[in-house]
Amino acid sequence: MINLLYPNNNKKIYKKNINYANRGMKLESLIDEANEYYKENDIAIIYKKPTPITICKVNYESDKKILTKGFFKNKSTLDYVGLYKGYYIDFDAKSTTNKTAFPLNNIHHHQIKHIENIIKHGGISFLIIEMNNEIYLLKGMDLIVYIKNNNRKSIPFNYIKEKGFNIKLKYSPTLDYIKIIKNYFIGGHYEKEKNN
Amino acid sequence: MINLLYPNNNKKIYKKNINYANRGMKLESLIDEANEYYKENDIAIIYKKPTPITICKVNYESDKKILTKGFFKNKSTLDYVGLYKGYYIDFDAKSTTNKTAFPLNNIHHHQIKHIENIIKHGGISFLIIEMNNEIYLLKGMDLIVYIKNNNRKSIPFNYIKEKGFNIKLKYSPTLDYIKIIKNYFIGGHYEKEKNN
Repeated sequence: MINLLYPNNNKKIYKKNINYANRGMKLESLIDEANEYYKENDIAIIYKKPTPITICKVNYESDKKILTKGFFKNKSTLDYVGLYKGYYIDFDAKSTTNKTAFPLNNIHHHQIKHIENIIKHGGISFLIIEMNNEIYLLKGMDLIVYIKNNNRKSIPFNYIKEKGFNIKLKYSPTLDYIKIIKNYFIGGHYEKEKNN
Repeated sequence: MINLLYPNNNKKIYKKNINYANRGMKLESLIDEANEYYKENDIAIIYKKPTPITICKVNYESDKKILTKGFFKNKSTLDYVGLYKGYYIDFDAKSTTNKTAFPLNNIHHHQIKHIENIIKHGGISFLIIEMNNEIYLLKGMDLIVYIKNNNRKSIPFNYIKEKGFNIKLKYSPTLDYIKIIKNYFIGGHYEKEKNN
């Protein structure tokens, strides 16, 4: 079941950017659904990292510990982490309404550094990108290579189409991204097939 | 540097259980120090998972997003996650003042299930236990085996001494637990040497 409501079950106050926000939430819901499917079917254990919060004040109400003041911290890692067939998986989901290029300003510098570190230590890292009503999985290495060789503040859609793996939606799980990992990251043929 | 203060820099209000609480925080500080050392020296990437919080109310003060009401959720996973030489690492730190047995009531049922899942999917999971002024690394499998075969609500210290790996403190990093992973979990000899 896809839940597009906020944690306190209040509906989002609709603003101008509703389309963008909803897209991001829709993508997250699909990833959550896939992760639940993987867990239930014993395929992989992948979960969303909690939002890092600096806890400032805590009250007790009838023995229940309630946080009454906290600050949101910038994430230095990515949103999802997990384990698939012994492989360490670490990735993020990004959504853009931009049709020609994926803006890089929503990936922090320390997140790029984190992706580099993951790859260096033998883990698998990537982005799941929603763009032009299609979903692409872009390998961390292809992201790093682009950033190191270009001064642009965005990645052209053509680069994502060329290097990324287009994930076709299906019934269950709707967004079966592990299939890409299985087919193209592990098991001998790490390189994208259509490029060979 | 070991910081034994709470996040808002207030000193802890001293209660009867101060000794226990301080012990737990001291152990966490040593693990944090080791993780920082591993990161700086490019040995491993291991970090503490943020505390999961259900966000209920958020206010904005001069454009800064401040959390004003939140509930602490029970952890269904363990405290630390990371990557070492391509291996997925997932563990927790536990401290007890009990001298004869390690009480199992501070490990939740879903945490046990999580440890089982990690092992099943090819990851490395364990507990770092502080007990009787010594530090032991107990493999997740040895924890599971004990729980499955015993109805006791605690693990006798003798079992931990026999199955666990005693980590001797040294200068830098003080608590070098990755050495145990390197020597006894990967690289061929997964079994504890002294038992062979």
